[in-house]
Amino acid sequence: MNVKGTPYRSIWLLDERHPARVGIIDQRQLPHRFVVEELLTASDVFTAIRDMHVRGAPLIGATAAYGIWLAAMEMSHGGSRPSAEGLQKACDHMDTARPTAVNLAWALARQRKVIASHGPDALAGALLAEAKLIADEDVAMNKAIGEQSLGLIAAQHALHPERPVQILTHCNAGWLATVDWGTATSPIYQAHDQGIPVHVWVDETRPRNQGAQLTAWELGEHGVPHTLIVDNAGGHLMQHGQVDMVITGTDRTTRTGDVANKIGTYLKALAARDNGIPFYVALPSPTIDWNVRDGVKEIPIEERSGEEVRVLPGWDDAADAAVSVRICPPNTLAANPAFDVTPARLVTGLITERGVCDASEAGLSGLFPERAAAKAKTATQKHG
Amino acid sequence: MNVKGTPYRSIWLLDERHPARVGIIDQRQLPHRFVVEELLTASDVFTAIRDMHVRGAPLIGATAAYGIWLAAMEMSHGGSRPSAEGLQKACDHMDTARPTAVNLAWALARQRKVIASHGPDALAGALLAEAKLIADEDVAMNKAIGEQSLGLIAAQHALHPERPVQILTHCNAGWLATVDWGTATSPIYQAHDQGIPVHVWVDETRPRNQGAQLTAWELGEHGVPHTLIVDNAGGHLMQHGQVDMVITGTDRTTRTGDVANKIGTYLKALAARDNGIPFYVALPSPTIDWNVRDGVKEIPIEERSGEEVRVLPGWDDAADAAVSVRICPPNTLAANPAFDVTPARLVTGLITERGVCDASEAGLSGLFPERAAAKAKTATQKHG
Repeated sequence: MNVKGTPYRSIWLLDERHPARVGIIDQRQLPHRFVVEELLTASDVFTAIRDMHVRGAPLIGATAAYGIWLAAMEMSHGGSRPSAEGLQKACDHMDTARPTAVNLAWALARQRKVIASHGPDALAGALLAEAKLIADEDVAMNKAIGEQSLGLIAAQHALHPERPVQILTHCNAGWLATVDWGTATSPIYQAHDQGIPVHVWVDETRPRNQGAQLTAWELGEHGVPHTLIVDNAGGHLMQHGQVDMVITGTDRTTRTGDVANKIGTYLKALAARDNGIPFYVALPSPTIDWNVRDGVKEIPIEERSGEEVRVLPGWDDAADAAVSVRICPPNTLAANPAFDVTPARLVTGLITERGVCDASEAGLSGLFPERAAAKAKTATQKHG
Repeated sequence: MNVKGTPYRSIWLLDERHPARVGIIDQRQLPHRFVVEELLTASDVFTAIRDMHVRGAPLIGATAAYGIWLAAMEMSHGGSRPSAEGLQKACDHMDTARPTAVNLAWALARQRKVIASHGPDALAGALLAEAKLIADEDVAMNKAIGEQSLGLIAAQHALHPERPVQILTHCNAGWLATVDWGTATSPIYQAHDQGIPVHVWVDETRPRNQGAQLTAWELGEHGVPHTLIVDNAGGHLMQHGQVDMVITGTDRTTRTGDVANKIGTYLKALAARDNGIPFYVALPSPTIDWNVRDGVKEIPIEERSGEEVRVLPGWDDAADAAVSVRICPPNTLAANPAFDVTPARLVTGLITERGVCDASEAGLSGLFPERAAAKAKTATQKHG
């Protein structure tokens, strides 16, 4: 989407020859500084994923895929050949950079297949082609997500043509979290671009404030009307008719439609249900984990450092500098679960690249019968 | 309660002669600095209430009452006599300092009666006596709230004697929000002082972070084990059995048991209900508004400046200085509703100084029959 009038993606190839380079936006510095970072090694990529220079399940997947290509380029530096064994080890290591995002393992599995099926001379080229393909597929999927769900926004607009459609979103499932378009934001950008008036309530999304720092920034750069709120405010707005629909993203969706997303999503789903407001979750199908049925019981939740709760980065306008401030007494302990699971019963619909379905096994299997069947077969073989 | 081992109240008389002075803790500076502020005039008091040097319904009421005494002392400065008309006007003005706290009008109504029933020579002394009485009554009420509800915590301890009772609270309904003991914290302090092991999950409570700044500070100073969490985390903790009960305060409770409290309280009540966790609200009876039945429809919600969302005060440990940081793009707009209303259907029980009751008209009328009857009579007269 647009940044100061120029279209951007969140990851792109800078140079495919030595020294190989991939460009990303260092999202930790947004919204205060727009900094492009050049990744030259698999280690750069690992750090960028672990320390959240890039975040968001689809972008993490694409970045990891480019990281394995960079690993191959490192091995071939100076004329030697990349080793399949070494690259599989690079995949093993990359897989540990973030524990929750299923896209990470998914993208690495694709690169593992490339590694297994190409000779050393063709490896680097094939890994780059696969990384590009993963990125392009993500863009196409997110565009399709928007096309499939644009009608949901148009229907709300038809109900209240005299005012903008009021959409609440949590965290950043925007283009910065994907390669382009975003997931939750894809229908919003498409509605806006087509002239359907929308207004977005942006949850700031503590502790890392992805809403305040990223969603507000990207909506502002693209010209979409929006208002920042604290995470506490959404329930009150819903009680008073100020929210027409909720759209969030997800890091992992179970076979049965449970949704793991940024901490606090579950609270918004409860409020939407209590006020009869539709709650949609947008997801590219690779984030469906066909192996998991009970999200609350089975999905491991990343526990991040309490420092993210205690100390908060921002911009000191008086000093015109980035400053982090502590918001609690010096010796206060903090806990920091990074995600929660919204049970399928609270989700009105899942928005995928193939259409909108019920948040249920029947709904997902109906849209993705071949994948549901493949996993069922695997399960039968295991238990047979 | 204790601060560095010394018992404190949140408001106290410093000097009853000219120049008359009242002491408060400037709560805006907590937890980073412990600063006692001296209030000398009604205007000082108005500013302290409006700009939240003091906050919390009961403390606001006591502070306003002292403020009218200070107004009388200002009038009598130099030997002139305080005027009843001038003091009634001082009450009118003081009443506009904060819109939501029913205690403000309630304490001022008590001072209005004092003004109406005393001659000019006795006025200042009578207003001071009434202010002291309001403060002492608040301490006694909060102590009683703790005594009445200690059994709820003891019962949880009996269920799980091997570990601390896990209590979640939102905002600061601690001793800093009252004159002493607090409301939601009164049973917690009493349980802790009696050796019942408790652990408190402290919601940071954006946008003003009263949990991180005040509740964490006061629990820490008194030695009560606690952990700071973001407002988004409570639902996840409840899903995973890490919360035994929720206790919050309230700024205003309707005749029917609806509860207006800090923004975000409603979301925690929804999560508690969804997970079968008891949700209690502690309140001194002056915060019951017997004139209101439907909290969501009838209680006006204070809309505060969006700057409180956009810019956040904290402590820069590197510079050892208070710094405010902006967390969003410079031109992002923010909305800031300060309270929400939790419908009675989500409240397990109301904890008052006379006991714990259902969050319903029957429950409240049962504990306070004389007040319910008085208001019913007024309503009949109005509509008769």
